[in-house]
Amino acid sequence: MTLIGLSDLPSVYPVIMAGGSGTRFWPASRKNRPKQLLPLLGDRTLLQQTVERLRPLAPPERTLIVTAAEIATEVCGQAPTIPAQNVLVEPVGRNTAAAIGFAAVVALARDPMAILAIVPSDHYIADHNAYLRVCVSAVRYASSGYIVTLGITPVRPETGYGYIRFSDFVQTRHDSKDPVEAEHVARNIAAFVEKPNVETAIRYLREGRYLWNSGMFFVRARVILDEMNLYLPDLKLQIDRVAGSLSTPLADAVLRDAYQEMRSISIDYGVMEHSRRLVVIPSSFGWSDVGSWDVLSEFGSDEDPGGASFGEVVAIDCEGNVFYAERDKVVAAIGVKDLIVALSGDAVLVCDKSRAQDVRRIVDALTRRGLSRFL
Amino acid sequence: MTLIGLSDLPSVYPVIMAGGSGTRFWPASRKNRPKQLLPLLGDRTLLQQTVERLRPLAPPERTLIVTAAEIATEVCGQAPTIPAQNVLVEPVGRNTAAAIGFAAVVALARDPMAILAIVPSDHYIADHNAYLRVCVSAVRYASSGYIVTLGITPVRPETGYGYIRFSDFVQTRHDSKDPVEAEHVARNIAAFVEKPNVETAIRYLREGRYLWNSGMFFVRARVILDEMNLYLPDLKLQIDRVAGSLSTPLADAVLRDAYQEMRSISIDYGVMEHSRRLVVIPSSFGWSDVGSWDVLSEFGSDEDPGGASFGEVVAIDCEGNVFYAERDKVVAAIGVKDLIVALSGDAVLVCDKSRAQDVRRIVDALTRRGLSRFL
Repeated sequence: MTLIGLSDLPSVYPVIMAGGSGTRFWPASRKNRPKQLLPLLGDRTLLQQTVERLRPLAPPERTLIVTAAEIATEVCGQAPTIPAQNVLVEPVGRNTAAAIGFAAVVALARDPMAILAIVPSDHYIADHNAYLRVCVSAVRYASSGYIVTLGITPVRPETGYGYIRFSDFVQTRHDSKDPVEAEHVARNIAAFVEKPNVETAIRYLREGRYLWNSGMFFVRARVILDEMNLYLPDLKLQIDRVAGSLSTPLADAVLRDAYQEMRSISIDYGVMEHSRRLVVIPSSFGWSDVGSWDVLSEFGSDEDPGGASFGEVVAIDCEGNVFYAERDKVVAAIGVKDLIVALSGDAVLVCDKSRAQDVRRIVDALTRRGLSRFL
Repeated sequence: MTLIGLSDLPSVYPVIMAGGSGTRFWPASRKNRPKQLLPLLGDRTLLQQTVERLRPLAPPERTLIVTAAEIATEVCGQAPTIPAQNVLVEPVGRNTAAAIGFAAVVALARDPMAILAIVPSDHYIADHNAYLRVCVSAVRYASSGYIVTLGITPVRPETGYGYIRFSDFVQTRHDSKDPVEAEHVARNIAAFVEKPNVETAIRYLREGRYLWNSGMFFVRARVILDEMNLYLPDLKLQIDRVAGSLSTPLADAVLRDAYQEMRSISIDYGVMEHSRRLVVIPSSFGWSDVGSWDVLSEFGSDEDPGGASFGEVVAIDCEGNVFYAERDKVVAAIGVKDLIVALSGDAVLVCDKSRAQDVRRIVDALTRRGLSRFL
């Protein structure tokens, strides 16, 4: 494939959001080993897959990773091509608005025209070339001043995702002449909608005006900081302090103090749902947020015995399961159906596939019973 | 409890049969860690429980353990009270007839009146006092020249055990005057019967003439060797060679050579099914051969969440399961029913409870797929 236009994108700064922690992939994910650091789909971790996927868009010197102190060493180890000064370590977690503000001022200090390509570190994308073509379109819209989010055309009535309703209105760019990108035009956004129930999800799928909210944004650093000025002025004040201290001996201390003062709010609630610059590009590149164990069902091979199998698995008379064995371990199953079996470290999870959302209750129960050593 | 008669039993030599290996408790049991070396029911291993249970019957100096070279070190470590020279290490496994012959000549060399109390090392017994009372009776019959086997009065239509049909005829002992033991009279044996199907097992239970074959025997060393002379003369020839070399510098070499020559046959097939000296004592002391994972169902506590639980277990909305977590590991389950989940070392087994007999197929599959490092 030829990626038309990639050489035209000198100011793209991928921002990989790798600070997240979560419980839904316990026992594979633990307190200091969140989902993005796990080899959940393939030999490489989701973070490594993300770094690799973005490589055609920008060189490592322009790729930023925002992460948490507890996992920073592991993040650096998994992404050895990324220069250490590009790994931005938040002193405390303050949700996505703070993280994006931090990354924006770092990028802006290096390049006044910087365009951020903000992507989660823990998602899966099947078709990298299709993805990159959409990214090229998104970068072009972003360079025209839009905030561009990627909306995924639904392929099933999914109840686990938030949706974006788009309008008929097609946005144009100043420089839009490239016929190849005609398929990736941006639309105005009519509404953000919460996770629907099944009936509603079926209707969304039928109506054809709803997209999955992928959490991927393309925006000029200067634009997102302007929007924060408008919609999150208190938080922006702290971001400005961070910006002013960059490359000074006080940088660490100011960062720590500013983060203490910031409120914890997501970029969706804080900016995106208010901004008038936001557009969405309807996209299809085989996307999953890999939100819980049951999602792995989709990624099995036809040869897997008894269900989607990851790692060493021996299954006799099984069907419809998700089997996950950490490296150097084995899962063996006989006569079981529609289960999740996940073996990692000193723990195993055995869960009816329809109950994957309840894994957090195991985490709660372990905490309550004084067994947090297993978390 | 007072154990009437225990001080009268100076020549009892418990023989703990600890050479067995098996696959039905994989992954807890492995090639060099068979079932008897596992803490399956309680904090102590089945072997340790066996040693402890027999202590009132004979001191450690008279307790023999027959085992295999691969596990001899572990056996000695688990039974530190038993003198090293009482741990009889077979150079190769040759089934129970050989093992009992070996133990018989060792005991006989120490005591011409030795009475062997031959017991498996991997069974469970709930009521130790009831068990010891039966043992006292059995020893008395054995001292009169009988081979005494303990037959367990069935409490359910079990299809996993062999049965013994007993006749009306009640055996008497020369010295039978003790009223306490009247309940433990020995009966003649009408037949050994193989594992029945469910219908037959229900009939056995109803008829009241069938007992579970426990594999426990009480017999004078001299008597069992005489019986071997009759029914297993070729094997007995090799046993005699071993007897002749005991305490000589050649003992090890002769043992190795004799074992090479011996055929592999169980004491049941080789002697018991032919012997005219065999009697059975119907007994009830809460016995299980702990034959497969599903058996552990019986041993759960009422407080266990979601089924019989051994080790650290967190279960939400579960029922009827058997959960086993090795020390320092945890099993977590959500919404599952009638499963066996066994977590040990680098492996987990998840198995429908009705399929517990198929665990050996997992072992076969691992071997076939070149994954025998997990065995």
